[in-house]
Formats: sequence, C-alpha cells, structure tokens
Amino acid sequence: MITVEEARALLFDLVGPLPSEQVPLAQSAGRVLSHAVVATRDQPPFAASSMDGYAVKADEVELHAMFKVVGESAAGRRFDGSVGPGQAVRIFTGAPVPDGADFVVIQEDTDRRGDLITITDHPGPKTNIRPAGVDFMAGTPITAPRLIRAEDVALMAAMNIAWVPVSRKPVIALISTGDELVMPGEEPGPDQIIASNTFGLRALLEGLGAVVRVLPIARDTVSSLETAFDLARGADLIVTIGGASVGDYDLVSDVSQGLAMDRSFYKIRMRPGKPLMAGRMGDTAMVGLPGNPVSAMVCGYLFLAPMVRRMLGLEMVLPPFHSARLTEPLTENGPREHYMRAVLGETGIQACADQDSSLLSVLAQANALLVRPPNDPARKTGETVQYLPI
Amino acid sequence: MITVEEARALLFDLVGPLPSEQVPLAQSAGRVLSHAVVATRDQPPFAASSMDGYAVKADEVELHAMFKVVGESAAGRRFDGSVGPGQAVRIFTGAPVPDGADFVVIQEDTDRRGDLITITDHPGPKTNIRPAGVDFMAGTPITAPRLIRAEDVALMAAMNIAWVPVSRKPVIALISTGDELVMPGEEPGPDQIIASNTFGLRALLEGLGAVVRVLPIARDTVSSLETAFDLARGADLIVTIGGASVGDYDLVSDVSQGLAMDRSFYKIRMRPGKPLMAGRMGDTAMVGLPGNPVSAMVCGYLFLAPMVRRMLGLEMVLPPFHSARLTEPLTENGPREHYMRAVLGETGIQACADQDSSLLSVLAQANALLVRPPNDPARKTGETVQYLPI
Repeated sequence: MITVEEARALLFDLVGPLPSEQVPLAQSAGRVLSHAVVATRDQPPFAASSMDGYAVKADEVELHAMFKVVGESAAGRRFDGSVGPGQAVRIFTGAPVPDGADFVVIQEDTDRRGDLITITDHPGPKTNIRPAGVDFMAGTPITAPRLIRAEDVALMAAMNIAWVPVSRKPVIALISTGDELVMPGEEPGPDQIIASNTFGLRALLEGLGAVVRVLPIARDTVSSLETAFDLARGADLIVTIGGASVGDYDLVSDVSQGLAMDRSFYKIRMRPGKPLMAGRMGDTAMVGLPGNPVSAMVCGYLFLAPMVRRMLGLEMVLPPFHSARLTEPLTENGPREHYMRAVLGETGIQACADQDSSLLSVLAQANALLVRPPNDPARKTGETVQYLPI
Repeated sequence: MITVEEARALLFDLVGPLPSEQVPLAQSAGRVLSHAVVATRDQPPFAASSMDGYAVKADEVELHAMFKVVGESAAGRRFDGSVGPGQAVRIFTGAPVPDGADFVVIQEDTDRRGDLITITDHPGPKTNIRPAGVDFMAGTPITAPRLIRAEDVALMAAMNIAWVPVSRKPVIALISTGDELVMPGEEPGPDQIIASNTFGLRALLEGLGAVVRVLPIARDTVSSLETAFDLARGADLIVTIGGASVGDYDLVSDVSQGLAMDRSFYKIRMRPGKPLMAGRMGDTAMVGLPGNPVSAMVCGYLFLAPMVRRMLGLEMVLPPFHSARLTEPLTENGPREHYMRAVLGETGIQACADQDSSLLSVLAQANALLVRPPNDPARKTGETVQYLPI
C-alpha cells in the first residue's frame, strides 16, 4: 500500500495538460486561459474626463475665473475644435478631452449662465482627466494559466479580445458496475439499490470544468464491463466505480488487465477508499474507485479533482487544505490516513459521529473533510487540525 | 442619498422568490432546492454486509470455530435460504445478510478449504453488518431551500429522487447604453471603446445561477433606449448600465420614468457606484448601474448578487463579509462607504494602489473588496478590516 501523496504523484504521471481551443469571450468564464492574451489597444484610447464638467486650460483655473463655452464633448462624440484661452468645452464622463485643454472643472464647482461659466468653488489640484492608456496599453498581457473570472472577462472585453484560448475540457467517462444497481426513477428489485456514485461524481467533475459521459451501468460480468470500456473510447480519463471485489475475483482489475492496462498502483493507505486502482490503457488514464458512495466521493475530491486541474493546465492542482480548531475531541487514528466527514462552523470544526463509508446522509451534512495523519494521537478540543472544504 | 444597507433593503422589496420547476436529477447541481424532498425507500433496504467475508450466527463465532459454506450472497443476488447452526454463507460488501445470520466474519480472519472455513483470528465485537435504513429511512427529508451540492445529488440519487424541484432561474436583461460603445471583435472608431460591462456582469450573474439576456447596445437616444426596454420584456430584472448622465439630461431615468417606472431610489452614499437607480416597471424590477466598469461590477457584487439569491429563494442572501488584517496602512475614508479593490494574501489584505473606478486591470488583479465605513479613520498595518471575496 502507498500513501495518498505517493498515489497522487503517480496519478499526475497518467495525465497531462490538454490542448487549447478558442471560445467566444461570452463563453470563457469558468474556463482556464491556456495562453497569455494581450490588449489590442490602449484604454482609454484617448485622455478622457473622469467627471461631468468643463474642459479648460489648467493655468487659467482659479476661483471666479470666467470662460466662454464653445462646444461639447460627449462619450463617443468628441469636440472637434481646440480649446483656446478663456474658452471651455462642456464635457461628460468618459468623453475625450479636447485639444488645448488639460483640466476639467467639475460642474458642481461652476455656475453657468447662457454661454458663460464662472468657477464658484476652489477646484483643487485634481485634473479629473484619465490619461490615455492608464488602464492598460496595447500589448499589456493577461498571463496564463488562470481560471477565468468575471473580472477577467470584463478586462478582456475592454482589451477587444473577442475569442479566448482555453484548455479543452477533459472528457471523463464514468462506469459504475454492479448487478445491484438501478438508475434513479427505476423500480429497484428487493436486492437492489439506486446508483448514486455516478450522479455525485458527475456533479463534482462538471463543477470542476470536465465534460462527463455517464455510461450505462456495467453488470458484474466480463463481457458487460468490456462493453463499457469500449463505449468509453475517446475519453481522456475512464473512471470505474465498484467492481473491485465481485464474487471471488476482482472484475475491474481483471478486465482492465485483459485490455492491456499498465497498472500504476492498486491500494492506498487511507480511509475511506483503500481499494483504489489506477493505470493507463493506451492513451487513456484509468482510475478504479471503490464502490462505497462516500469512498467514491472522497476519492473524487482527493484524486480526480487534482487530475482534472492538471488536465486543464492549472498550476495549483492540489486540494486546498486549511486549518481550524476542534470543537470536540478526537480519538487516536489508526495506521491509515483518515479523511473524516466533518462540519466546519463559526467556532471551529467537528467530526461527524458516524464515519461509516456507506452513509451519504452524513456526507451531505458535512462541509469539510478533516484530515488525520496515520497514527495521529488523540486530539483535544481546541487543537488545530487540517481540513479540506467540500 | 441613502446607505448601502438601506439601498439593499429597498432592492429586496423589488424582487421575491420565483416559482419552482422540476429538473432531472443530473441537472440539479448548482440549482436551489425549492421544496423539501423525501427518500422513497430505506437505505440500505436490507441489512447489508460492510465487508467481504462469511455470514454466520454471532453466538457461534469464536477462535478455531468451523463452518460449512452453504451458499453465496452477492450485491444484487442474495442467498435465498437460511443460515443454520454450523453453517456459513460467503458474502460480499453490500450484499444482503441472509436469514439466520447476524454476524459477518471478515475473510482475512478465516481459512477456507473446500466447503469448510475455520476462524483463524479473533473476529472482535464488530458484526460488520449495516442495519436496514442506517443511512436513511423512507420519508427522511432533505430540507429546502438549499444550494444543491454534488453530495446532495448523490444522496437524492440514493433516495431514488429522479426529478428535483428547484427555483426557476431568474431571467436578467442587460442593457448597456452609450454612443461610444462597440462590441468585442468590432473595429472601434477613434472616440469609441469596447463594451465590457455586459460581459463582466453576464459572467458574474450566470455564475450565480441567472439566465442572462444581453440586449443590443442602446444608443444615447430616447427611441433607442425605449426599444431596448421593449426587447427586455419578460425578464424578471432589467439592468441598465450607464446613461445616467448623458449630455445634460439623465437618459435612463427620463425614459424609465416615461415608461411609468415607480422609482425606489436614485443615489447611494458609496464609492464606487454613487449614481445607482432602482425601481419597478409593472411586474419587472429595474436597476440602473453606473457606467464606469469597476462601479458596475462592484454594484453587481453588492446589489445584483443578493437580488439573484433572493429570487432563487435562498435564505443567506447578503454578501458574505469576512475579516482580515491589513498588511499596509490606509488613509482616512471620506463620507461615503468605500469598497476598495484589494488583494488578500496569506499574511493579510492590502488595498490596491489606484482606486479609480475606470481601471478594469486593477479589478482583475483584486480578489477582494475591502470595506471602509463612512468617515473611517486612518488604519494601521495589523488592524482588522472587513472584506468581501470576489
């Protein structure tokens, strides 16, 4: 058995950054920018007023000075002439500052009568002019890789970047196995349960930016599982769930070995989720998750999420652990790293009472996985522990 | 002018929770559960083994005891008979525990020769049986409202809930106004800039769960703006951007008043974003945002996001403020509440150097809005301030 960290290193060897594709700007939020983009122009492209007021010559600005208004500069429609001595141009926020002017007196500091304005209040030293290019200049880059936020979308729009290079979304095929499984909405037989793993993992992986193909449930036969693997062709990652210990043989392992899988590892020293398997079938990475629903989801956070982030080309791929204080004590941990379902509140963190890996009701109440290192001693209330938000 | 808090209260009066709709389970993640759902069955539906091993009678379990294996119980295919004295049934994880058995000896504690097993290690007190209904019973609810997470999807699947009642997504029409604006990908004239506000706000609002309709840019004329309002019909919320101070009149205000808007308020004592307008046109809420790109986005976080959450029926609608320590001092604040673009790092928070509301490059570097109350005194490094993550 290997550690969680060793397992993750081996999983990273199975996948790499995917190629880039171009998407329209309006569809780029939440994608990963794959290459730096650069502004195609200066912003603002001209010296612009930051206020509504009057554009004048700075050296004429003083209390009680009078000016003749000779025109107007609005956003999108500049004043074509030049501002001469004793002249002012009515100007609005965002409008180009006319030639000859280098100061905007805000309208609250003026009194206007017909074509004449008088400065009625001390205008102060601020020119109220945004120089050309103060936000960015042509050629200013947005560096990659980065997860594109709404703010980046706004900035790229202003830079006139209409198409955005992003990492292709990883395609992940999910195969759940088991004669006992039926789909939600179906009527289960007395020995059957509802397939929940593919639904939970699909939501998790789509939320991380993957495209998920949920394949038909594979039955506990070699031929059914071979059919499922065949349907998964073309995926970047195939994830099987369950089937690691069916009858007296290990169906997923046997079938994948039969399909020439190069097995990377088999078991991890962790709870929940010990029977994790991973390897490569030709160009495709393959991960076999345990069938217990909580184990499958925990392996999703700890292993699949980092693999997705790596395929997306992100630099920060590891689960983002934080620390918090215990509000209840913990008993000592066994020899395996333990990811306990836990509730993080305002005063600290508390492990859920029942840590059985079949309990989805407990997982749904949890908002964190509390991490216990192997053989971690008993912990008192108030001690600091590590957790992963979920 | 009113405070940010007063403005938000008035905005909440303009919108209410939207009606519910049913979506397939696989499309429910990220939506808001509008009504409680209940499990349609017990999970597990039968007493189930939590391990691979042998199902026997508990009172026969002791070191060196021997049993005859009389059958097999696998997940989905239970053993039909009953376990008698001295008998064992081979059983796998998740399989129904057969009648007559109340203990599972794990296979690691046994030695098997043909049809006979011997207990070779102390099995301990754990029965390795999950009672029927230990995860949940038929009728167990998932309460509403809640934002549906991947874990909830998994739990609803296990509960056999194939269709999920969720709040309808709010439809938001975005109208940007201005003769100076062209769309990304177009060739701007010398006095023109690229429309960025609708792109940034669209990404923000879609990320919050809204459906966004971006309408054609309205020109600075009454008829163009009236056409845009006409195209926005059917939206739950109309958001205009800019146009609050065009030429010498207030175009959006004038046109919306002409369309019988019941105006709720006009200006807010905040930076950036003072000229915010809101009201109601018939059944539709209307918010007029300032045209400066940073102001528009900040109003999006502070006002539109809470309105979306309220329309979705969520209970937690206010922006989630946190606190952090300053890594650089701050000068005193003026009379308006100030939402400073800031960078939150491992050691604390720092306001960006240039707070001009036109600078999208600064907003894109920021990951937080640092909140300054009106007339907040100068703050030293190490003092605690409030911020909103963005």
